Amino acid sequence: MQKGIIKLKNSPSIVSFAAIGGLKEGEGPLGPQFDSIDQSNRFGENTWEKSEAQMQKIALSTALSKKEYAAHDIDALFAGDLMNQCTSSAYGLLSFDVPFFGLYGACSTAIEGTILASLLLDTGHFSRTAVVSSSHYYASERQFRYPIEYGGQRAPTAQWTVTGSGAFILENSGRGVKVTEVMPGRSIDKGITDINNMGAAMAPAAIDTLTRYFANSDKNPDDFDLIATGDLGYEGYKIVKDFMRDYGFDSQTKYNDCGLMIFDRDTQDVHAGGSGCGCSATVLAAHILPEIQRGNLNHVLILGTGALMSPESILQGESIPGIAHLIHLERE
Amino acid sequence: MQKGIIKLKNSPSIVSFAAIGGLKEGEGPLGPQFDSIDQSNRFGENTWEKSEAQMQKIALSTALSKKEYAAHDIDALFAGDLMNQCTSSAYGLLSFDVPFFGLYGACSTAIEGTILASLLLDTGHFSRTAVVSSSHYYASERQFRYPIEYGGQRAPTAQWTVTGSGAFILENSGRGVKVTEVMPGRSIDKGITDINNMGAAMAPAAIDTLTRYFANSDKNPDDFDLIATGDLGYEGYKIVKDFMRDYGFDSQTKYNDCGLMIFDRDTQDVHAGGSGCGCSATVLAAHILPEIQRGNLNHVLILGTGALMSPESILQGESIPGIAHLIHLERE
Repeated sequence: MQKGIIKLKNSPSIVSFAAIGGLKEGEGPLGPQFDSIDQSNRFGENTWEKSEAQMQKIALSTALSKKEYAAHDIDALFAGDLMNQCTSSAYGLLSFDVPFFGLYGACSTAIEGTILASLLLDTGHFSRTAVVSSSHYYASERQFRYPIEYGGQRAPTAQWTVTGSGAFILENSGRGVKVTEVMPGRSIDKGITDINNMGAAMAPAAIDTLTRYFANSDKNPDDFDLIATGDLGYEGYKIVKDFMRDYGFDSQTKYNDCGLMIFDRDTQDVHAGGSGCGCSATVLAAHILPEIQRGNLNHVLILGTGALMSPESILQGESIPGIAHLIHLERE
Repeated sequence: MQKGIIKLKNSPSIVSFAAIGGLKEGEGPLGPQFDSIDQSNRFGENTWEKSEAQMQKIALSTALSKKEYAAHDIDALFAGDLMNQCTSSAYGLLSFDVPFFGLYGACSTAIEGTILASLLLDTGHFSRTAVVSSSHYYASERQFRYPIEYGGQRAPTAQWTVTGSGAFILENSGRGVKVTEVMPGRSIDKGITDINNMGAAMAPAAIDTLTRYFANSDKNPDDFDLIATGDLGYEGYKIVKDFMRDYGFDSQTKYNDCGLMIFDRDTQDVHAGGSGCGCSATVLAAHILPEIQRGNLNHVLILGTGALMSPESILQGESIPGIAHLIHLERE
C-alpha cells in the first residue's frame, strides 16, 4: 500500500447511478441531466424529513432499475445523510432488505461510501454494492438554522443546501466508470468558527488531501481532465484555487466545485453556491459520470468535502473540522 | 463469499483495547476491569458533549499506549457515536492525524466499525486500524429526552445510557483476539414506536442476524462459550432468549446482553439495563476480550445492536428500525 493512496488492483466499476432533485436543482444548469425532479420538493411526503428519506428510496430504486437489479442483488449498502441520527438513510432505505453500513461523513458521505464500497469490492468480499446519500434544503434549514418560514437573512458567504439524492451501484466486474485509486481524508480544523462560511472551513481539508495525493502520486494536476471538490462553494473554491496555482495548475476549466456546478450563482440567489450530502452525489450522478461515459472526461479526481460540526458544538464555542475523501475515476 | 457471513481469510487480530467509564459504570460489576473511571463523569471538560469527546480521546490514547503506538502508526480510524452529527468522534479524535471514516450505526457502531476495519485488514488494504465509539448518559439524556435537571420519570422498560468509550486496535498480523467471521446486519422494523422500550425495537434485528448466521453456518449455538447482544437490556434479552430456545440453546450462562452485564439491575436503578454506543464497546474492552485472552472464553459471538430512529422521526409517527451487526471472536 502506497502511504495514504490506495490503488485498487481490480478497479471496481460504477455500473449504474441516479440523481434525484428538487425544484431549484431542476432549474439549475444540470437540471435536464437529473433522472427526476419533483418541483414540489415533497416527493409525495408530508414532512421535509420524510421527503428526504423518500428521495433516497427513489434514487436507489432508479439506479437498480437501470440494470434491472433487485435489492437482493446487492451485497451491502453504504449510506448516510445530514439529519440527526442519519434518519433519511435509515428510513429511506428500510425497504431494501440488504446488509446496511450507516455512515456519517457530513457532505463527504457519497465519496466516503464509494471508497469503502470500492475497497470491499476490490478484494472480493462483496461482488456488488450500493452507495446512497442525500440532503434536503428545507429539512436542513430547520435542523441547522431556522425553519424557512422565519425568513432569516442569509450571509453572502452562506451556501444553499442541495435538495437531492444520488445513488451508485458498484461491481467488481462489469462495465462502467472505473474507480482506480482512493484516498481517505483526515479531519482538519484550522479554527474557522463562522457557520456561514463552511467553504472556508472545509477548504483546508481539501488542500490537505490534494497535497498528500500529489506528494505521493506519480501524477500531477495536468493529468486530470477535471478535479472537483464536493461543496466548497465560491469561498472555499477561491482558497483551493489559490493553492492549486502553487502546483502550476491554473486552468479555471479543470478545477471546479460541485457547489458551483449545480446552481447558477448569477440568477438563482444561492449566494456562495450549493452544499450538502446531495451536492457532490447528484453532480457526480447527473453530470460527471455521464461525461466520463461519453468520453468527454477521461481522468477525474473527486474530493468529497464535509464539515464535521453540529449546531451544539458551534454554540459551545468549538470550531469547524473539515474532511475531504478522494477518489480517482477513469473512463473504462 | 458465503451469503451474508464473511469468513476472514487472514483473521485480523484485536491487539489492544481500552475501556473508559463514568461513576455508575465504575460502581457496576465490571467497574474494576475498566482502564479508567472518572467519578465526576466530566473527564476534565465543562460540558457533557465535550466530556464525551474527551472520553474517546482517552480511550484511543490508552489503547495505543498499551502497544507503545503513536497515532501515525494507524492507517485508518473508524468511529462514531450517538450525538447529532457524530461530534464526539469528530472532536474527540481530531488530534489524531489519521484517515478518518465516520460511522453512524447508533449503538452498533463499535461492531460496525470492527467489521469494516477487519475486512480492510484481511485483504491488506490496511495493516493497522482503530475503532472507537462512545456514549454519555448526561449528553444523551438532554439530546434524546430531557436534561437530567428536569427530573423526568423513567419507564420500567427504559434503559440507562452508558457513560463510556471503548477503543480497539486491530492488525492483520500480530497476536491478539482473532476476528474470524463477520456478518453485517440489515435494518429491521417491526413497528415498535415506544421509545421507552428500545430493547423490544432492536430484538427483531438481533434475531434476524442470528437466524441468518445459524442458517448459513456449520455452527450451532452450543459451539459458542458466549453469545452477547450489545444493548437489548432485559426487555430485548427476554425476546431473544425465547427465540434462542427454538435453537435448543437454553443455558442462561451462554446467552447474555452487554446491557445486563455492565450494571447490577438490583442495586443500580437502571431499570431494563445499560444501552448506548458505549455499552457494547466498554463491555467488550473491559470484560469479554480479557476473558478470551485469559482462556475463559474461546468462541464468542457479539451482536452490536442499534436503533436507527431520532427524536424527530418518533414525533413524526415513525416506528423504530433496529440493526444488529455480528462478529465471531476466537482465542488465538
